[in-house]
Amino acid sequence: MRYLPILLIVFLTSLQGFSQSEDEQQIKSIYEVAMTKGKAYDWLNYLSNQIGGRLSGSIQAELAVAYTKSLLDSMGIDRVWLQPVMVPKWVRGTPEFAYVETTPGLTTDLPICALGGSVATPLGGIKAPIVEVKGIEELASLGKDELAGKIVFYNRPMEPTLISTFDAYSGCVDQRYSGAMEAAKYGAVGVIVRSMNLRLDDLPHTGAMGYGNSAISSRIPAAAISTNGAEFLSTTLKLSPNAKFYFKQNCKTYDDVASFNVIGEIRGSTYPNEIMVVGGHLDSWDLGDGSHDDGAGCVQSMEVLRLLKETGYRPKRTLRVVLFMNEENGLRGGKKYAEVSKGKNENHVFALESDSGGFSPRGFSFDCSDTILEKAKSWGPLFEPYLIHSFVRGYSGADINPLKDTGMVLVGLRPDSQRYFDHHHAENDTFEHVNKRELELGAAAMTSLVYLFDKYGMVETP
Amino acid sequence: MRYLPILLIVFLTSLQGFSQSEDEQQIKSIYEVAMTKGKAYDWLNYLSNQIGGRLSGSIQAELAVAYTKSLLDSMGIDRVWLQPVMVPKWVRGTPEFAYVETTPGLTTDLPICALGGSVATPLGGIKAPIVEVKGIEELASLGKDELAGKIVFYNRPMEPTLISTFDAYSGCVDQRYSGAMEAAKYGAVGVIVRSMNLRLDDLPHTGAMGYGNSAISSRIPAAAISTNGAEFLSTTLKLSPNAKFYFKQNCKTYDDVASFNVIGEIRGSTYPNEIMVVGGHLDSWDLGDGSHDDGAGCVQSMEVLRLLKETGYRPKRTLRVVLFMNEENGLRGGKKYAEVSKGKNENHVFALESDSGGFSPRGFSFDCSDTILEKAKSWGPLFEPYLIHSFVRGYSGADINPLKDTGMVLVGLRPDSQRYFDHHHAENDTFEHVNKRELELGAAAMTSLVYLFDKYGMVETP
Repeated sequence: MRYLPILLIVFLTSLQGFSQSEDEQQIKSIYEVAMTKGKAYDWLNYLSNQIGGRLSGSIQAELAVAYTKSLLDSMGIDRVWLQPVMVPKWVRGTPEFAYVETTPGLTTDLPICALGGSVATPLGGIKAPIVEVKGIEELASLGKDELAGKIVFYNRPMEPTLISTFDAYSGCVDQRYSGAMEAAKYGAVGVIVRSMNLRLDDLPHTGAMGYGNSAISSRIPAAAISTNGAEFLSTTLKLSPNAKFYFKQNCKTYDDVASFNVIGEIRGSTYPNEIMVVGGHLDSWDLGDGSHDDGAGCVQSMEVLRLLKETGYRPKRTLRVVLFMNEENGLRGGKKYAEVSKGKNENHVFALESDSGGFSPRGFSFDCSDTILEKAKSWGPLFEPYLIHSFVRGYSGADINPLKDTGMVLVGLRPDSQRYFDHHHAENDTFEHVNKRELELGAAAMTSLVYLFDKYGMVETP
Repeated sequence: MRYLPILLIVFLTSLQGFSQSEDEQQIKSIYEVAMTKGKAYDWLNYLSNQIGGRLSGSIQAELAVAYTKSLLDSMGIDRVWLQPVMVPKWVRGTPEFAYVETTPGLTTDLPICALGGSVATPLGGIKAPIVEVKGIEELASLGKDELAGKIVFYNRPMEPTLISTFDAYSGCVDQRYSGAMEAAKYGAVGVIVRSMNLRLDDLPHTGAMGYGNSAISSRIPAAAISTNGAEFLSTTLKLSPNAKFYFKQNCKTYDDVASFNVIGEIRGSTYPNEIMVVGGHLDSWDLGDGSHDDGAGCVQSMEVLRLLKETGYRPKRTLRVVLFMNEENGLRGGKKYAEVSKGKNENHVFALESDSGGFSPRGFSFDCSDTILEKAKSWGPLFEPYLIHSFVRGYSGADINPLKDTGMVLVGLRPDSQRYFDHHHAENDTFEHVNKRELELGAAAMTSLVYLFDKYGMVETP
């Protein structure tokens, strides 16, 4: 067996397409600057605490456009511009209110919030019997007989045994997005959806819902209920199946308004026509201040450019930071950016998105060829000192996905996911839940990956 | 090159000393039970919120002994007992108070707390000029001329570029532990130590300090100052080098008191004389409720036994959970356990400690032979689905270290360390900062490792 380790070394070395010491040194510099002179945390502080929640079409969203553009302007990069995009404008209105009534007059208030895009209830609210289901597929078996005139309560919890909380989210979010549209087909008058949260607490979590092409008149209001509220309601319905549910919300959709993607670029020294994008989304929901979703991704993306500049690395390819508008309720920014880029025949070779929270980075997920994924994995030893271990095939990010094209490399930053949905789209997605070091480590990991792909190219032999 | 992958597979397979599918299944069961019927979080809730901070010698420490013994009693394991151990009793007294005075009458209060084991100031406090240093090694160059009659302010921050915050802690904690003893040699009258915290905030962090064998009369009081306080004080001293510092604390050391290690055991079915220990420490500091340090480790360790029972695995070796008393300010429990075990000629083959917080587990550090470390690494693919990636050589834990013996395997759970020192020994080491899933994932990872070592043994060929 003595020859095996030698062959193994040869084999592994052939996989490692990098010059160890120079890259080690560059990545060390990136991390050192990020951890000692990082700007991401201060930027996020301003974005979260001075501006706050940045729902598309809101004043805050426009303040965030102006603030981040001014940051990019101050960075001394080659070009900064705003890319116009029309975005939906949905407004929550006054605080929502809900209760369950087991016998007339005996009520318990429950914490709800309107889902983004929902219609309002009638002015006086809706009061109706409520039917609990575990998913959309149950509606057909209940049918109009059981559902017409009632409120549907979607109560399938996120699956706790899934290690990635994003997998658990994917397994539940159909209730939130399509629940109202589907229930309306059976004559339901409203829907209440268990919050997409693995933790039991009292905070309702909003998020996008849609009505598809259904007639305006058939659209019914939808709200999220906190996980504790969902548990309480479920228990109540077991004891009092005839309980009625009341809720009231006065949210409203206005005409689309003008907004912007914020873009900054360092022109490539050698291949200026090959574009690498790094980005996050600038809009957020309105309940918290959007620190994790996705203020973190925005400041990390801007920090990528700054860290490369600070460490004296001039990219060979054109490197663009794009802060996309309207990921949460329309994806208009991501679509617009891809549309404009295709119209101009721009050659995007790489895109990296951070939109999974500002938690400790664990690795990256890659949407690319096997060859490129193997190449990225071969850089594992460079990332090992920084505890970046995951190089897996997977989804990249909603905003960069419209750019997808043959031969392109799409990547998503993958932070530790355990706490993400405790805060996601809820009033506790706030700055104090972001750890400075975790945010900085994410920015440094992103910068290191961008550096390696820029240096060695998007094909096996650059 | 075609033959290489095949040889690689042969080579890797020869490293994997495990039956993939059975072990995969067992580990899956462990995780499923941990994530759906876990008890660790509820236990920690009681320990933290019903009992609270459990400093050795306190009523709370004794309540924690009784509570955890009752939990083990209820688990239907083979034997539960208390192991007597005498522990130090140090009491903080009334809240500490400090200010800096730039000119007579012009003062700014600063947040401090006495370091554990410190003597009190005189009743009226101490007021003296204060000299900032970055470490003990600076004292000699300043000498008695500069230090006699003054307070020494140790202000070397934790090194932010170290990725493991434990490495950053190791590089600073000498100031806290030995700072007073060393400064007293130069006639200093007190020491103020920058808190061991990478974050800038207002919370002072306590922790053990010692006077060695120095004469009682030479012992000077020591307190920690918050990181923001340290920054403020440092800036103040640059502007006003003659500023005076005042602090007052009335902490006191009493005679040692009786306490206990709490021990529970499942007798091994095949090798009952080979003992595997899993543990954490039951005592904590008094400022918070000790949720991360080390309530988490205690409930995870108890959960290991419960998860193995629940999943129907009967250990071949004797498996003991040990909740050690007095790790924080004496290590009496760890020393006593090792002493008793050596006195009885017990054969400890394995010990695993969780004492790095209840955060997302990243892996394990091993203090053992190269062969065993390679064996553990060969189990990597079994842990990969659970995002456990780190199998590294390193320190295990303070409580199990006294057991160390040739041939033995000592292991430490290694959770993500970024947030640990934000809470360590401070009033914000509290239950709400522990995430249920992260705690459970740690317990499941520990259980899986114990299962594999029990099944395959502590030598290369079991």
